[in-house]
Amino acid sequence: MDSVQGRASCVAPTASARVRLRPLDPTAVRILGGLLGERQRINREVTLLRGAEELERAGTLENLRIAAGRSEGTRRGMVFSDSDVYKWLEALAWETAREPDGELERLASETTELVASAQQPDGYLNSYWHHDGREPWSDLEMGHELYCAGHLIQAGIAAGRTGSPRLLDVARGFADLLVDAFGSEADRRTDGHPEVEVALVELYRETADRRYLELADKLVGRRGFGFFAEGRFDLPYYQDVEPVRESRSIVGHAVRALYLAAGVTDLYAETGDRTLLTAMLSQWDDLVSTKAYLTGGIGSRHYDESIGDPYELPPDRAYCETCAAIASIMWNWRLLLVTGESRFADLLERTLYNGFLAGLSIDGRSFFYANPLQTRSGHTRHAWNPVACCPPNIMRLLASLHHYLATTSDGGVQLHQYATSTIRALVPAAGTVDLAVDTGYPWSGSVTVEVVACGDAEWTLSLRVPEWARGAVVDGRPVAPGYAELKRRWRPGDRIVLELDVSPRLTAPNPRIDAVRGCLAVERGPVVYCFEVADLPEGANLADVGLQSEAKPVDSGPLAALGGFPGVSVAGVVRDLGRWGDIEYVDVRELPRDGAAAPLPLLAVPYFAWANRGGTGMRVWVPGSG
Amino acid sequence: MDSVQGRASCVAPTASARVRLRPLDPTAVRILGGLLGERQRINREVTLLRGAEELERAGTLENLRIAAGRSEGTRRGMVFSDSDVYKWLEALAWETAREPDGELERLASETTELVASAQQPDGYLNSYWHHDGREPWSDLEMGHELYCAGHLIQAGIAAGRTGSPRLLDVARGFADLLVDAFGSEADRRTDGHPEVEVALVELYRETADRRYLELADKLVGRRGFGFFAEGRFDLPYYQDVEPVRESRSIVGHAVRALYLAAGVTDLYAETGDRTLLTAMLSQWDDLVSTKAYLTGGIGSRHYDESIGDPYELPPDRAYCETCAAIASIMWNWRLLLVTGESRFADLLERTLYNGFLAGLSIDGRSFFYANPLQTRSGHTRHAWNPVACCPPNIMRLLASLHHYLATTSDGGVQLHQYATSTIRALVPAAGTVDLAVDTGYPWSGSVTVEVVACGDAEWTLSLRVPEWARGAVVDGRPVAPGYAELKRRWRPGDRIVLELDVSPRLTAPNPRIDAVRGCLAVERGPVVYCFEVADLPEGANLADVGLQSEAKPVDSGPLAALGGFPGVSVAGVVRDLGRWGDIEYVDVRELPRDGAAAPLPLLAVPYFAWANRGGTGMRVWVPGSG
Repeated sequence: MDSVQGRASCVAPTASARVRLRPLDPTAVRILGGLLGERQRINREVTLLRGAEELERAGTLENLRIAAGRSEGTRRGMVFSDSDVYKWLEALAWETAREPDGELERLASETTELVASAQQPDGYLNSYWHHDGREPWSDLEMGHELYCAGHLIQAGIAAGRTGSPRLLDVARGFADLLVDAFGSEADRRTDGHPEVEVALVELYRETADRRYLELADKLVGRRGFGFFAEGRFDLPYYQDVEPVRESRSIVGHAVRALYLAAGVTDLYAETGDRTLLTAMLSQWDDLVSTKAYLTGGIGSRHYDESIGDPYELPPDRAYCETCAAIASIMWNWRLLLVTGESRFADLLERTLYNGFLAGLSIDGRSFFYANPLQTRSGHTRHAWNPVACCPPNIMRLLASLHHYLATTSDGGVQLHQYATSTIRALVPAAGTVDLAVDTGYPWSGSVTVEVVACGDAEWTLSLRVPEWARGAVVDGRPVAPGYAELKRRWRPGDRIVLELDVSPRLTAPNPRIDAVRGCLAVERGPVVYCFEVADLPEGANLADVGLQSEAKPVDSGPLAALGGFPGVSVAGVVRDLGRWGDIEYVDVRELPRDGAAAPLPLLAVPYFAWANRGGTGMRVWVPGSG
Repeated sequence: MDSVQGRASCVAPTASARVRLRPLDPTAVRILGGLLGERQRINREVTLLRGAEELERAGTLENLRIAAGRSEGTRRGMVFSDSDVYKWLEALAWETAREPDGELERLASETTELVASAQQPDGYLNSYWHHDGREPWSDLEMGHELYCAGHLIQAGIAAGRTGSPRLLDVARGFADLLVDAFGSEADRRTDGHPEVEVALVELYRETADRRYLELADKLVGRRGFGFFAEGRFDLPYYQDVEPVRESRSIVGHAVRALYLAAGVTDLYAETGDRTLLTAMLSQWDDLVSTKAYLTGGIGSRHYDESIGDPYELPPDRAYCETCAAIASIMWNWRLLLVTGESRFADLLERTLYNGFLAGLSIDGRSFFYANPLQTRSGHTRHAWNPVACCPPNIMRLLASLHHYLATTSDGGVQLHQYATSTIRALVPAAGTVDLAVDTGYPWSGSVTVEVVACGDAEWTLSLRVPEWARGAVVDGRPVAPGYAELKRRWRPGDRIVLELDVSPRLTAPNPRIDAVRGCLAVERGPVVYCFEVADLPEGANLADVGLQSEAKPVDSGPLAALGGFPGVSVAGVVRDLGRWGDIEYVDVRELPRDGAAAPLPLLAVPYFAWANRGGTGMRVWVPGSG
């Protein structure tokens, strides 16, 4: 029954997989509103359609027509631009399964036929490598062929699981070619950009064809032996610095690291090779203790898009690519399924509401690639990007957000993310359970769960109490962060209320994080806040603003200009640095004395909603003023 | 007489140039020892010869042979690699003029013939654009053709001024082609990488051919109208964001900005166009108040090698390319000549002893390209680099260091940098003046200047009192930073002693520099110090070290492992962050309390000498501990 249950989800472990929790069938989960529901609606009504326009405008669809021989012309765009189409097709599959839509289905169907027509008879498919007689597999370092194949496979699986097998057939044709091309034991090759691994494991799950699982295992096992030693970047960039099973820290290009980690975690789930899980848990510990931003964003360096050293977390030059946030959500979801531990759902939530949602404007029309936590000179969203990996990646995650709300185990149902929703779960011990969740989360911390239908047997309803929650209460009983487990013989009509305190709070960083030492940030429930120049009084300089650690931030009511999201008021100061003048550095014996700091009431807004009123200065971390 | 005096110097303003100070003839200036003398010796005996080996090993010389038709094969290396040869030839010219050397002269002569043989009949010369039938001027954005031409011209001028006209003829042949190719009024083109401008002004000075000056003026005037709007990088990167004459801030790629600034300053000197000087002085103010590192290093971002926003000065991700330090020294020297103001000699000194000297290992055998002020995971010098712009740039500056010591004006001699040296200057009002300088500078602050010979007329000896000097004394008289001017009728045998207090001191940054807020650095005279892991007791973590603002740093005697340079002892602490454990961020209401900080005597070493004992952790800025 388990394997049936989650079959239509983006991640569907086999019946024998080493998982503690299992995804639900997302066709029986529905987000009915609130912040996440609104984001899904905008994605459906605006962003996915913009995707079609922009993929056309950028030549990305035309590239496939040229490859198919349907059009003359010169290929345009990045070497990996086909993957933009695949991610968008994946999004269309999840979205039209969520709710049918003639236009979106037509786009999916036409584009699927276009993709199929560009496939070569042997299964090969890549418009860049088709073009000008380029030799396939001749640039595994930067060519992104297996990366693109991975996204094709994921899109094919999404289409297949939502009732359209055509793209899955195409993907399988390419996957079979990959098995032939890369499957020999003697082969030492792998791809510079991981992504195909997670796709191949899922294709195994979808088809029960072990060759895909075995290829994923081989590709993972070949890393760490210096195949990319002559590359333009260093070995960590290619996830080639040490064997995956021996790795204990997470390094290199953030998206490459995180897609690989998702695949390796899936590989553990299906093979039971615990050396893989040990490596992944170690990498995760390394990440959350020294390399993750407060927003869940990952990637501290622009130059090589890498994670950087421990505690190297500059807010201004944070890279925090939107794709890295998505990859982190993918990885944390898989770790949650494998372990059942709330810390993975916690990081998933932090990333979802901050590092991820910041990547899309409120109106769903423009995007961020990098998501810094501070900007002095501005940082504006763009309608698309020559490197367009992020926009369709955002679309596919938004279209599948409801996959991530809840899971089942043998004995119950677990709610991980809270949104007003209806949820149907098959609990092995208790049959079909229907739940109705009602909440204003994340703005309100009150979550009501009603059991609408269930069988007679005892089962456990587990509610995640986030790591940031203090004084949480379920049904009048105090509960600590983790899962509040309510085991009982439930009856239709039973209601449980979880009360989380989402009142604003101040957060401090580890003193070893040099770049924000002595600073404070405002958080409210799972949402990180920030300060924008747009909210300062005329003439005030964001560089001179300070926050008092004893300040008590409070809700300031809905922000009309920002989607009605609640603002936070906090007492700040503006320092008088006038005596510094043009002095950049000074002998401590001649330190200019600051003038008296003037009180300044400050307004903080949700970080994910920043840069929706122009790209002026912003900061999440503000110096403490004593 | 003026124009004769500095004729053999790297910068030689014409007789009519708007300069307050004039360079000396460097053949009559000699650094006899000390830190700078030792660096010149190592350059001569080690680094220049390594240059020959590495230019051969990298294929850079072979590229010219291929271009000359003397060799078969495929061109290797960067598009601009010819400029590595030119900078090295410039270094050989200055060095062999300083002191003849058969081997270095043979290398210069042979390589000059090689360069000449690669020149096309029309004067064109570039091994990259020769190759494979590439079309000249077809990629002004990144092709570096005029950049390479600029370095050829500078090398030719150096050769010409030191008695070897062959390379100057070659350079002039190319310059004439540039005049033809880019000189029309209607032409809107310029080069993505400034450098040719400073070379063309100097070529005008050398040849009195105004066409070169006019071309420099045109190339400068064409910037700022979006010629590079379709480029891979933004307009500031190409110094194309606004007309130079209107610019007030310094932005974009650091080396491009600074080479351009040097050329624009020279252009002002020869044309008297004050809009150029106004722009340069404004850019300089912007630089020193918000964009320069304590080391004089410039360039805050790796990704596009750019200067970054005001106060964006991360110590760990500082780019501070060695070439940017050299370009800054070039610019400051020109501003000093134009204005006579000590602040430019001050920044030149700060850059020379820190941001520049750090680029070369003590043994003269390995190089830094980027010069960060902090590293957590290490940063090792390399024997050469695929992008080899810095090593030969270091060589040409070291070979010409004595050009930068002193100047003359109508009424006297000015000493700007202090080294044990002999200096001959022609003072218009007083004839030939011979000086002998004796000092242990920068380690000692005592500088003795003896007048060895001079005429009978009154003249002024000006001694720079650096901006960092407090309580300086000349001849028993207190003097403030700036120039101490001693006007008198000097007699041979007169001695003057300048006493500068070089005792170690603590320095604080402007509070707007987010990345080092609350930190302190150690300086000693013009030398910035740093802390290396190699000097910490076993088990101490550099991340947890703090400095007390009331600590009194003191000399700790010569560092045997680091060239005998003096170390500095300062009382520090090591913080006990044990209770933080793996916590990355925390609610302020649950802040872990630090354990008691333990006293820790710290040793600081000269920043320029870091990473000579392996590439372990280092930091210049250390958190203040109260």
